Formats: sequence, structure tokens, C-alpha cells
Amino acid sequence: MADKIGIGIIGCGAVGSAVVRILLEQGRSLTARTGLDLELRHVIVQDTHKERPVDIPKDILSNDPAQPLADPDTHIILELIGGVDTPMDLILEALRCGKDVVTANKALLALRGGPIFAAAREAGRCIAFEAAVGGGIPLIESVRRGLIANEIDAVYGILNGTCNYILTRMLESEVSYSDALAEAQQLGYAEADPTLDVDGTDSAHKLAILASIAMRKTCDYDRISVRGITDLEVTDLLAGDELGYVCKLLAIAQKHDNGLDLTVHPTFIRKSHPLASVAGPFNAVSVYGHAVGHTLFYGRGAGGMPTASAVIADVMEVATGNAARTFSQLTRLADRTDAATYRPSGENETAFYLRVGLEDRPGGMARIATVLGDHGISIASLVQHEPHQASGGDAVPVVVTTRESKDSTVQAAIKAMSELDAVIGQVICIPTLDEHVESSHA
Amino acid sequence: MADKIGIGIIGCGAVGSAVVRILLEQGRSLTARTGLDLELRHVIVQDTHKERPVDIPKDILSNDPAQPLADPDTHIILELIGGVDTPMDLILEALRCGKDVVTANKALLALRGGPIFAAAREAGRCIAFEAAVGGGIPLIESVRRGLIANEIDAVYGILNGTCNYILTRMLESEVSYSDALAEAQQLGYAEADPTLDVDGTDSAHKLAILASIAMRKTCDYDRISVRGITDLEVTDLLAGDELGYVCKLLAIAQKHDNGLDLTVHPTFIRKSHPLASVAGPFNAVSVYGHAVGHTLFYGRGAGGMPTASAVIADVMEVATGNAARTFSQLTRLADRTDAATYRPSGENETAFYLRVGLEDRPGGMARIATVLGDHGISIASLVQHEPHQASGGDAVPVVVTTRESKDSTVQAAIKAMSELDAVIGQVICIPTLDEHVESSHA
Repeated sequence: MADKIGIGIIGCGAVGSAVVRILLEQGRSLTARTGLDLELRHVIVQDTHKERPVDIPKDILSNDPAQPLADPDTHIILELIGGVDTPMDLILEALRCGKDVVTANKALLALRGGPIFAAAREAGRCIAFEAAVGGGIPLIESVRRGLIANEIDAVYGILNGTCNYILTRMLESEVSYSDALAEAQQLGYAEADPTLDVDGTDSAHKLAILASIAMRKTCDYDRISVRGITDLEVTDLLAGDELGYVCKLLAIAQKHDNGLDLTVHPTFIRKSHPLASVAGPFNAVSVYGHAVGHTLFYGRGAGGMPTASAVIADVMEVATGNAARTFSQLTRLADRTDAATYRPSGENETAFYLRVGLEDRPGGMARIATVLGDHGISIASLVQHEPHQASGGDAVPVVVTTRESKDSTVQAAIKAMSELDAVIGQVICIPTLDEHVESSHA
Repeated sequence: MADKIGIGIIGCGAVGSAVVRILLEQGRSLTARTGLDLELRHVIVQDTHKERPVDIPKDILSNDPAQPLADPDTHIILELIGGVDTPMDLILEALRCGKDVVTANKALLALRGGPIFAAAREAGRCIAFEAAVGGGIPLIESVRRGLIANEIDAVYGILNGTCNYILTRMLESEVSYSDALAEAQQLGYAEADPTLDVDGTDSAHKLAILASIAMRKTCDYDRISVRGITDLEVTDLLAGDELGYVCKLLAIAQKHDNGLDLTVHPTFIRKSHPLASVAGPFNAVSVYGHAVGHTLFYGRGAGGMPTASAVIADVMEVATGNAARTFSQLTRLADRTDAATYRPSGENETAFYLRVGLEDRPGGMARIATVLGDHGISIASLVQHEPHQASGGDAVPVVVTTRESKDSTVQAAIKAMSELDAVIGQVICIPTLDEHVESSHA
């Protein structure tokens, strides 16, 4: 590749604007530290008249994506528009035109990674996507290259800053989910329509990408069991706090003898675990390798400048030629790995937090205990709490933590409890995560 | 480079044995995931008859380092012997023989990095050293490549697992420094002669390497102000705990308008900072970039298998050719960067923890307060503690935290206090670190 590297950016929202800003403001400094001359040749937007946080020279601004694709001096296309179908077509066309591609699009890679990677190989080009998972955290390359010597048996990630901000604020200030969401929206940590964040979809997209690379198997987005944070109540976060837990929306990939478990759900983590201290809009991922043991990567998982930091890193890796070698030699992408085998659902064994609303009269507690005993579930602790927020009618909240039990067994017990007259409202169930045991190493 | 990559290992202690083990046990799996065939051709040891934790085939074991250097099918030399002069000569000779070099030797790179990197460039070869800082954590490459878009203004590292283990145990079990050290030695977390770990030298070696890469300046090991953990007392850790701080041996590189500050010293960190939860033998490094904000990398900083994980990652990067490109194109090594300019010492401004032993009679407290006031130092809190361990004679320990004050001013005040009749024994002084403010980013 030439010493002068031509760049075309398609899509100029928060991330695109930040990438433009870094390239324009720090071009010389980037050249000094890399020996590479990055030339921003095209910025493609829908509306060329829209006000943007960065001044884009008129002669490189256009609304026609065909321009950078047709330009022989543009070597790298940065796809920063989001969505699935439009960027898919665009990336395939860019590859056909002989461009390398950098993208931050997790939905696209989670849903269409296989065909995109295959098309890149066919075209002899490469795709780099560090920014797609964990925003500015150098995560993808750390797992793919830095931990290459390892068999990885578990990945636990806080991959959505919106959810983490909301959960942090709910506990800190004892505010409801909707109040915390409103605050997050005000601060720009949540979008006007936060659905894909708070329902766990965004975390699941990222997990599909990250797990595929960590486990070296094609992990199917559709096989991820997903639950969001919308039904969490502050009373549960406070009860967990009292028990020594912090609630996080965790994206989990765990290797078992009988297959892989992929889940996204609210999880109580012991306060001593390093993930427990990840607060506010930050992301972090714990990765467990058989040689390295526990590693953790932490940083801002969203936002214009942090994400741009990862996009520029990808541009540099493409420009030096490293990305092409990694792409072609390290055979761990969805078009070249076997499909994962999955563990039957319901087999997850862990301790559970349950909150049951009981009618305020004698005998209820005994019935709950009986149901749990009948299902072979041992009680680790049981606390009858003063109600913090009414969880329905005159219900008295009873918090139970179980010893390690099978998910399917606990779900059966919850079903049985829900059918009791004494139980009011929904039984809340949150799994817990203890410190993952590192593989024995010397 | 050929698809078959020949490897020669020189030095087969804990790290070397673990590298051999991974190469022998997982050779096929490594080939499957990389397309590269790594062939272990030489293991050079001092004593070929010594018992080792891994079975090394007799035909590749030898005590003659000239063998791998003379072998045209050996492409990469792994220097894993430690020390400075012997490995220096060895690496220079390996480069002259046309070999690429992987090393985990932080002392060597901290003290002789410039000439070694220059020799590699002259020979058209490369040096990879991910394992030299932070053991198995993919740290060097994350900072060098993953954060390449950033101006980095601060690095805070827990870079020595021995010290971190000792400090964790002192606080957890309220045991003395020497008892915690003995325990660390028993568990293999401290060497028989732990001097270079506990006096801060090892952390300073690693800081010189890490800061040079993060700040893109040649950071001179001799300019690092170093203080170890040997004079810490459990009473200070407990007093800090009460004030909301955890004590860590921090390696710090901080950029200021008037130059760089490089220090290694025990530091009180607020419990809310993610570094505070780094316990036992783990390492972690906070890196602050102008675009990405706060990032943190965590993992095992020592031990055979974790360090081997990083060594193998380097071998792969050399084998794919990525390391050579990084080495030649990303001009951030000690032979190609300007010397750092340093801030005059004593200018560090932070809050300080002071413990003063007072004679148990009236008037002492007033004299301390007067000295602080005379030096323009504001008191943030003042607690007279029940003695936990006698800190000398009949002294009553008084704990003072100051508001932000200049290091040189506080040192002058300590000198004045020490001269008071009412003050018994040494005045203990530990600086504190608040959450570093991220550069404003979009």
C-alpha cells in the first residue's frame, strides 16, 4: 500500500464526526508517529447542509457514496452509517471496488458476518472492526492476537454503557428504572428510543462477535438467550447490595463439556469481582484463558471520540498491512470457523436471587420453603424485607438466595410458587455469578 | 517468512518451561488457528540434566546458545534468561545472525532499550516484548496500536504482583510486612531474594518501557523517583481504609505542561477507582487518552503460564510479519523518539496522608497544626488513632490528610515536624491519587 493512504468516510454522525476531527486536527502528529500519511478524501453524508460539530472542507463533502468507491486513490472505506441492509450493500460494493473496510457496525457483523468476511476474502481485501465491541477498548485485537496462545473458556462482558449507567444510577440514588433512563437520555448516554440497548439486543450483537473470536467458533446471534433490564426494580438492587452483590447486565459466553452457553441477562456479581466496580457508562470484559488466567479490559464502550479512537486504530492496522495479515492468516472469523455447539438451555447451574411477594398473613413463608424443598433447591439465605417500593398490592417482599441450582429447576419452582394463592405478583429471579475459577496454570 | 517457523528458546526457567509446554502440547491447535507451523528446534539451558516441569525432547536440548544462532531454520530466538549483560550480548548476536527476537526481559529493555532497538533496525530484524510489562496482559500492543489515535497524558500501573500481594494480605489479615512477605514467598509470589520487587526497581523498569511507548518519548529509567513498600506498616493501611483509600505500589507517568513526572511509590487510591479492586498477585494499568478517555488493562503480571501467553503472542506476531511492520513503521521506540523532558521534582500536587507519632501530653497536636499552617498546608481531616502497633516509644499516632499541596512543601513541613520535641519517630507520608480527570471528549 502507498505511503499516502486515502480514506473515505461514509456516515458522519457522532462517531464519523469524531473520526474526521482526529484526522483533521492530528493528521501531522499521526504521520509523525507512524510514518503514514492519511488523507481524508471523502466524507459522505445524507444531508450536506446539516450543521456538524466539525468543519468538513466543502470539496470532500458529498451525499454520493459512489464517489469514494470510484476514486482509485481512496484505499480504505469507513462504514459508519449503522443499520444492516444499506451498509451490507455498501461494504460488498466497496470490497468489489478493491477497498479495505473499517466498520463499527455490530448489528451488521452479528447478523451477516459470515457472508461479509467471505466476500472480503474473495476480493483479497480485509475488514477491521475493533470499534464494534467495547467502543474504544482495544478488545477484539487483544483477544484475537494478544491471547492467541489461550483456550478461552469464558467471557463475561458489560457491553452496553446505557444499561450500566442506568443500573449504576438506580442503586446510587435509589431511583426507578424510568427515572434513571430519563437521566441517561438527558446526558446523552441513552438514545431517544433506547429499546435496542435496554432490551439487551445491542449486548447480544456484541456478544455474538466477541464470543466467535474468543471461542473460535461461529456463534449464532439467534442462539443467545437475551433478557434486558426494563423489569428491574430498585428494591432488588438494594436487596442485592445488602447481600454483597452488584447487578450488571452481563453478556456471557461459557464453554462447557457439552457445549457453549450464550446469554445476556441481568446478573448479580460479587462486589469483590473486578467487574463489580465498573460504574456509569463504562464497559468492561473479563476473559479467562487457560494460560493467562483472568484478564479484564475496561473503557468507554460508546461515544464519538472513544469509538473514533478504535476506528483510527483499525485504519492504521489496515494501512500498515497488519490487518490484512491478521484477516487472512488468523482463521477465526465466521466464514472459516465451525459452528458452535450449544448446551441445552436450562442447564446453567448457579446460585439464584429470588424475590417473592407474599400475602401478609401466616403460612406463606412455609409454602415457599416447601416448594423450594420439593424441587431439591437449598436455601442459602432468606430475608423478609421492609417494602421499599410496593411490588404489587399488599405483598410483603421475601428475598431468597439459593445454593447452586439448575436454571430449569429454579424456573419450575418459580412456576409452582406463582401458582400459590399466597404469592402476589411476579416472582423476580436474578442469577448470580461468583468469581470464575481460572484453569489451573503453573 | 516460511510457513514453518523455527523457534529457539534460550533460558528454561518458569517462563521458558511454560512456553515449551504450550508449543509441545498445543502445536497442532496453534497451527489450526493461525495457519502457521511453529517448530521448536532448540531449548538452551545451563544444566541439561536438571529436572524440569516439562519433558523436553533430548535432541533439541543443549547448553550451547551458538546452536540456534547458527541454525538457518531457526527464525525466532526467545531470550528468557533474565539479567542484563549476558542477554544483551546474546540478543545482539542473534540479530547479527538474522534472527528476530522475543524477550520478556524488562531490566534489559529499561536499561539498554535504545541500543538494542537500533541494532535490530540495522540488522533489518525486529524485537517483540509484550511479556516485559504486565506479564500476560496484552498491554504493550494495546497501547502502541490499539490507542494509537490518542495523546496519552497519564499512566497509572500496578506493575508488581509481589508487592500487590503483600499489600493485599497486610490489609486483609492485619499482618506485618514481613509476615506477608514470608507468606508470598511460600506461595511462590515472591522470590527468595525479593529486593528488586519490594524496593520498586522492577516496577520502575516496567514503567520506563511502558511510559516510553505511551508518551512516545524516551523515558530514562534513572529519572524515575522510586520508593518501595518495605517501610509500610499495617497501621497506615488500616487508617487509609478508614478514610476510603487502598494502598497500592503505583508506577506513574504523568504529562504536565512543564514536563513528565515518573514515579514509583506507595499511593493511596480512592476505593471507587477501578485500580483499588486489583487484589493479590494481579497487575493492572490505567491509561488515559485524549480520545478514548480512561482505559484499564488487568491480568496476571507474572508466573510461567501467564507470561508464556504473552511470549507466544509475540512469536505469532513475528511469524505473521506484523511485528516487523509495527517495529519498523510505528516509530515509538527508544532509538527513534526524543528524550522526554521532566518536570522539576517536588512539584507534584496532591492530597497527602501523614502519620505523626506524638508524645502523649498536651500541646503536641497544636504544634503539628501550626507547622502545617505555617507551610500553607490545609488540613482535610485529622484523626488521633488508638495505637494498632507501637510505632515507636509511647507515641500516639495522629493521622492527618492534607488538601492538595505541593510535594516539596509537604516534605519541608515533614522536616519541620520531625524537629519538634513532641514528635517521636519518623513521619509517615503517603500521597493520594484521586480519579484522574479524563480530557474532555465528545
